Amino acid sequence: MASLIEPRVLKGFRDLMPEAEIERKDLQERLERVFRAYGFVPIDTPSLEYADVLLGKSGGDTEKQIYRFKDHGNRDIALRFDLTVPLARFVAEHAAQLAFPFKRYHIGKVWRGENTQRGRYREFMQCDFDIVGSDAASADFEIAATIASSMKALEVGGYTIRFNHRGVFNAFLERIGAKDKAIDLLRLIDKLDKIGIDEVKEQVTKLVGPAADDVLAYVARDDSFAATLDRIERLSGGPSDASGRIKEIMECAEGTGIGARLRLDPAIMRGHDYYTGIVFETYLDDLPDIGQVCGGGRYDDLASLYTKQRLPGVGASVGIDRLIAALDELGRSRKRGGYALAMVFRLEEGFSAEYQNLAASIRERGICCEVFPERKKIQQQFAYAEKKGIRYGVMRGTDEQSRGVYILKDLRDRDSVECASIESLIARLESSPS
Amino acid sequence: MASLIEPRVLKGFRDLMPEAEIERKDLQERLERVFRAYGFVPIDTPSLEYADVLLGKSGGDTEKQIYRFKDHGNRDIALRFDLTVPLARFVAEHAAQLAFPFKRYHIGKVWRGENTQRGRYREFMQCDFDIVGSDAASADFEIAATIASSMKALEVGGYTIRFNHRGVFNAFLERIGAKDKAIDLLRLIDKLDKIGIDEVKEQVTKLVGPAADDVLAYVARDDSFAATLDRIERLSGGPSDASGRIKEIMECAEGTGIGARLRLDPAIMRGHDYYTGIVFETYLDDLPDIGQVCGGGRYDDLASLYTKQRLPGVGASVGIDRLIAALDELGRSRKRGGYALAMVFRLEEGFSAEYQNLAASIRERGICCEVFPERKKIQQQFAYAEKKGIRYGVMRGTDEQSRGVYILKDLRDRDSVECASIESLIARLESSPS
Repeated sequence: MASLIEPRVLKGFRDLMPEAEIERKDLQERLERVFRAYGFVPIDTPSLEYADVLLGKSGGDTEKQIYRFKDHGNRDIALRFDLTVPLARFVAEHAAQLAFPFKRYHIGKVWRGENTQRGRYREFMQCDFDIVGSDAASADFEIAATIASSMKALEVGGYTIRFNHRGVFNAFLERIGAKDKAIDLLRLIDKLDKIGIDEVKEQVTKLVGPAADDVLAYVARDDSFAATLDRIERLSGGPSDASGRIKEIMECAEGTGIGARLRLDPAIMRGHDYYTGIVFETYLDDLPDIGQVCGGGRYDDLASLYTKQRLPGVGASVGIDRLIAALDELGRSRKRGGYALAMVFRLEEGFSAEYQNLAASIRERGICCEVFPERKKIQQQFAYAEKKGIRYGVMRGTDEQSRGVYILKDLRDRDSVECASIESLIARLESSPS
Repeated sequence: MASLIEPRVLKGFRDLMPEAEIERKDLQERLERVFRAYGFVPIDTPSLEYADVLLGKSGGDTEKQIYRFKDHGNRDIALRFDLTVPLARFVAEHAAQLAFPFKRYHIGKVWRGENTQRGRYREFMQCDFDIVGSDAASADFEIAATIASSMKALEVGGYTIRFNHRGVFNAFLERIGAKDKAIDLLRLIDKLDKIGIDEVKEQVTKLVGPAADDVLAYVARDDSFAATLDRIERLSGGPSDASGRIKEIMECAEGTGIGARLRLDPAIMRGHDYYTGIVFETYLDDLPDIGQVCGGGRYDDLASLYTKQRLPGVGASVGIDRLIAALDELGRSRKRGGYALAMVFRLEEGFSAEYQNLAASIRERGICCEVFPERKKIQQQFAYAEKKGIRYGVMRGTDEQSRGVYILKDLRDRDSVECASIESLIARLESSPS
């Protein structure tokens, strides 16, 4: 006999067992329903692209992490490492055929050969939605509203969408003469939650001297919306287009009943380069420490690497893996071993057509139903049903057949109901909770 | 200004525009509903695996086509080229945690660096469903039933599932003393439709001499089920377990109302090595020339490369791309530019909260609804709605606001209805056809 190959996956990669994949698909389906309700449409792009298209002029960290190799035609190619670069390439390439503003969602795998510490995977699902080709405040708001509807659809409990506007902060920096310190200040403010206010203040003082008090006043968090807006307007030299946009977004939020979910937070900065306007970060109220579960913001120009056409936009990304972890931790996980509500047990040989017909009648009413394929011991059939989380067993042997009845067994409490017809059995399944 | 990177995809790869991706997702969702109804559960496996795990001892053609390279840790890795090898590896690795018979479906991308003639892609979606760990005829039937329900769900019109049993053919070969010619004969019979019966007969005669008449009698197609079964039983030396299984599958099919869709076809062989029992090929009645749209069969042992545990099974694969092409050709394509039924037009500045609130009320009733984000010319808003296939426009300006009414415009015939309340407007949308 030939020696066996050890069945194993690469480090940083994983199989999803049915229970985990069902949960992931359930999340994805809920999110897709929300995206579609808001008018987003899906696209697909190749997993493999020319390396120069994916890497642009960036290089650096991305280049170290990317899976890049030569194909059979000696082309320099790579696996995509996010869905934003492919979106930019896609929009530049197909602009003439797209309806603008282009509202797209894209849920797909991306690959990064990075260090696999801290539960990070080298292959993971990315879930992005963007509105490309519009500068409007209404587009900004829709991203926030889509986040809110997504959180509701996922039943994650309370959540807060913290938002901010980079433009107001930039005006403030200009006023205190610290525009050239922007990147360093952003980096420090991003660390506020990690290293604490005293440490931040010390380091900010080193950067901007006595203006540090203004910086810390600017990023303070303890006020109402109106007071916070008023404060950052004042510190940035008065009302501006940017602060007006914050107001418009909040008005839309109030008008649609999600005002309480949005919180103006001048300390939210989301990285250093990419975003130019509104930025969002979403946290779960019952589990803030797990980190943000959905974030995004507005960018000036999506596809400048590939086209001269200016394409401003706004978008966000849902952290599917993190949300699954959060649902688990919150005890709100909806894990299950399968979709079937009922299984037809195989009690007799020679009843295949009968059992298959029974199951087909049940499925016709939209109920998922299995047939156990072999005449195995009843305990084995029970064990199978239990493993797949099947709630009801349908039993029919020669005795039931001769009496013209069907047994419906609740596999949780093992109670049995004798049904006088298939119709009454199906009616019982239809009225079953869950 | 820096020079631009040309936005382009690799040869053999493609973007799916929203219209195409919506159609693909629609097909996938219909198929998944069917798979779930039959008790199949989804799994996920990595796109990248160790090359030795994917290639086994095969080498040859597969090895030439596979995307294979060294990762950052100098591991020899490759992109999966089908979903069967990963299933085998998965089942061998996780057998202890799985419920057997293991009914899994898997829809995912696979990659093959093959010649891109004839509309073949180097990246394409594979859609497989299998029942692993059962020898039962009921499992064979369920694969056929799942194919039948899939074709119904996809609304492809008439179809025929041709099926056959390799075991009966093997018994026949033994009887005529041509067992060692099996592979050559299978290859010739597979060509029957291509090269015609005369050419096949000539070549079969070269292989088996006067027994060629029996071979051609065996693979004949022009009889009823009973006559065909009788003929192949007779030619193979009488009834056997294998021919009994054919009968049982047909009984189940008759019992569940799909008997007319199944056709015993002794000329169906499906390749040479892999399948050992029942084999299936599905053709569209209105478009047989497009080739089979779903095929599969029974195998003796799925995972012998990775485990000593014998894992017989039966499964099939749906040709999603071919089905999309077929729907197109049959004029049954359900292409659309988006999901939204209605769009709120932006008639006035300063109405953002009002428009967003209107859309939110419509979405709350499960209707997909967009808001046009900017105050552009009404013709541009119309053009956008048309491109996305949005049927209704919701209009409200200062005049309508002061009169407390809403205008619902049918964007196909441009008729307008003045609605006295949001409720009546929503009721009209809810009762809209399609």
